[in-house]
Amino acid sequence: MTERDRRDGSLCNRIYMDYNATTPLDPEVIQAVTEAMHEAWGNPSSSYTPGKKAKELINWSRDNIAQLVGGRSEDIIFTSGGTEANNIVFYTAIKHFWDSHHKAGMNSAAGGHDGNSRVFPHIITSNVEHDSVSLTADNLVKEGKAQATFLPVSKVTGCIEVDDVIAAVRPTTCLISVMLANNETGILMPVAEISQQVKTLNQNRDSELPRILLHTDAAQAIGKVRVDVHDLGVDYLTIVGHKFYGPRIGALYVKRPGTSSPLHPMFFGGGQERNFRPGTENTPMIAGLGKAAELVVRKLEEYSSHMREVKDYLEEKLLATFGKEKLNFNSHFKGSDRLPNTCNVSILGPNLKGQKVLLNCQRLLASVGAACHSDQGDRPSRILLTCGIPHAVAINALRISVGRTTSKADVDIVVEDLKQAVNELEGFTAQAGQ
Amino acid sequence: MTERDRRDGSLCNRIYMDYNATTPLDPEVIQAVTEAMHEAWGNPSSSYTPGKKAKELINWSRDNIAQLVGGRSEDIIFTSGGTEANNIVFYTAIKHFWDSHHKAGMNSAAGGHDGNSRVFPHIITSNVEHDSVSLTADNLVKEGKAQATFLPVSKVTGCIEVDDVIAAVRPTTCLISVMLANNETGILMPVAEISQQVKTLNQNRDSELPRILLHTDAAQAIGKVRVDVHDLGVDYLTIVGHKFYGPRIGALYVKRPGTSSPLHPMFFGGGQERNFRPGTENTPMIAGLGKAAELVVRKLEEYSSHMREVKDYLEEKLLATFGKEKLNFNSHFKGSDRLPNTCNVSILGPNLKGQKVLLNCQRLLASVGAACHSDQGDRPSRILLTCGIPHAVAINALRISVGRTTSKADVDIVVEDLKQAVNELEGFTAQAGQ
Repeated sequence: MTERDRRDGSLCNRIYMDYNATTPLDPEVIQAVTEAMHEAWGNPSSSYTPGKKAKELINWSRDNIAQLVGGRSEDIIFTSGGTEANNIVFYTAIKHFWDSHHKAGMNSAAGGHDGNSRVFPHIITSNVEHDSVSLTADNLVKEGKAQATFLPVSKVTGCIEVDDVIAAVRPTTCLISVMLANNETGILMPVAEISQQVKTLNQNRDSELPRILLHTDAAQAIGKVRVDVHDLGVDYLTIVGHKFYGPRIGALYVKRPGTSSPLHPMFFGGGQERNFRPGTENTPMIAGLGKAAELVVRKLEEYSSHMREVKDYLEEKLLATFGKEKLNFNSHFKGSDRLPNTCNVSILGPNLKGQKVLLNCQRLLASVGAACHSDQGDRPSRILLTCGIPHAVAINALRISVGRTTSKADVDIVVEDLKQAVNELEGFTAQAGQ
Repeated sequence: MTERDRRDGSLCNRIYMDYNATTPLDPEVIQAVTEAMHEAWGNPSSSYTPGKKAKELINWSRDNIAQLVGGRSEDIIFTSGGTEANNIVFYTAIKHFWDSHHKAGMNSAAGGHDGNSRVFPHIITSNVEHDSVSLTADNLVKEGKAQATFLPVSKVTGCIEVDDVIAAVRPTTCLISVMLANNETGILMPVAEISQQVKTLNQNRDSELPRILLHTDAAQAIGKVRVDVHDLGVDYLTIVGHKFYGPRIGALYVKRPGTSSPLHPMFFGGGQERNFRPGTENTPMIAGLGKAAELVVRKLEEYSSHMREVKDYLEEKLLATFGKEKLNFNSHFKGSDRLPNTCNVSILGPNLKGQKVLLNCQRLLASVGAACHSDQGDRPSRILLTCGIPHAVAINALRISVGRTTSKADVDIVVEDLKQAVNELEGFTAQAGQ
């Protein structure tokens, strides 16, 4: 691949509105990563100056990330990304269940290896989670290591219902994992309310039973809305750099890891991250994550209100262009709050499948759902179906997510672009029907 | 932390000779990472151009890494680093053992959860491995999930003996993991010879028994000596970017993953890396790893002979300065080959502990062993002790590892620096003895 080929990866004249799939890196983040590559390449475990400086940079970043979510620095564990962070939480919950179980001398299942198991750890999650949660839970079930309840969201609110979560709790429930904001609809989930109820449940629980741990994947929320671990009352919170203009690594917030909330490493090695996550630290990316966090701490209000304004303008403009009857806003649920940047909309009509509309756009880059499902574009999003969006509407869905630099002028162009794409597709239908 | 503070992480007037701990990033690698941050930030799973371009860059990198180790592109799985790669191999071997076991309908142990286990997967490794191998094996034993043999290296050769490996094989042996080059002594291990013998063992094995899988951690070898998976005959080979002027990620070579050699994911998520290692790809770091691999493919001979020349010059200069009687080269074993860049030497004398000597150096930055053990500098390296180096010699050890840009002039300065440090420490001893 030549340098020229690689540069073609830039946007040219396209307008990117798929910021929920990934964000570009903020120029300050690129600078932080680049500087660290030049200046902080020492091994952070080395005791001489270049090593110590790398360590200091890592801890500076840790402080920023702690501040980002309202936690303490020692509660932050760097990971390779959100997928790893989510997997660690599930691994921890299952291992913690068995450890408590053995300690309590209760009847033990054999972790799936024999056929005489009587007791299984139980997990509660929603059916609109990211694959790194839902498939991790699926796999635990498949391997006979856990039982899981996948709670449907309400078709009225698009939201998981607190009462449903609490009703699903069993004596063996060891983990509740509910995302903070859905990646396709942008709907915000009532994690703080779940936490309050779980707290009461835990207080009244038989002392032999392990405490119910609470996790939220905040991948889509951070950088868009205020996220505070105290308000949320969670044990674990997943942080994903590339959703808030940071690099492709992540972090896991754990409330006093190993003390208040258990944390079991999936890897063993050189002792980094207090043995919770060994492996020589990716200093440059960690520096970038710290810078991305610092930016959000400083400017969340500005980012958030800008995105809300542009997204609202987009929805108004769509209404003005296509008319109310021609549109369905798939994430407008009464009483539910949602991310300021996410517009999930279907332009109604028989030949207007989301994937087709996007292919006919000259300028807009958006998606029909999660990026990791982009090869399934011909099928409607399971997330939308589960929210009660009818099949014929869901298959036309466009997820348009705006970013910090998206302008109203961009919106004007994009809506015009959509109009032209729809006209073409409908013209084609009309012709075909003649 | 101010920008100024962070810049202080650079070397100032120190001379870095700890390239086995980590290497700086090659300027071309920094450029590749930086360009990818600017140009290839799209989500590689997205179906539009920026996503496709990121995907292409990842595959360009995969091709280079395949070429680096003589494998096929589809044999390369990107990981967050060597620790993850090594852990995946151990996880895979144990899971593969149980899967084969259940298929064969043999008596099953309960994965450590009950007390009636009769059969356990067995692992063979050396006792000079990196922590990410040795502690992973330790943990499997501790958790009752496997049995392990930690073979001592020969005190004559500093090397693991092929016969010892073969003699340790049991019917339940499912994995042999031997590093390609030791990080402290630089000794090259006979992985190809082990592979030949294991091949015969596997051919003659009871068909009910799982095949013995062979893994080598090539972290220290790549970029210093030629590494070829066909010559080595391994199922798995660990690749670590920051040991060959690349970024802080890694890769795992797996011989036809899922077909010829099993590979079980530790994480579940969005399907990236063909589900073997999901998580949105760290495109910039992957681009850097690809560039670092390309450099080694192109220039290995040049790098290697330069490092050998400078290291040989260092050893000559040390001999000329301190005299044969005052030195012990801790990795000079008759008949054993070693890395071209690694000099492990003890300057003999009662007050010349390695850590102390380094602290008294004004210019040299080196170490007394693996970076992840730098907090244990007061104790002699367990690797050296196990190689038969006496305690009093091992505690004086210095690991001096040179790099691509280390010059003979650097060596002159460093040896002078060591001379001065030794003089100071011995002067202090002489005074104290008066």
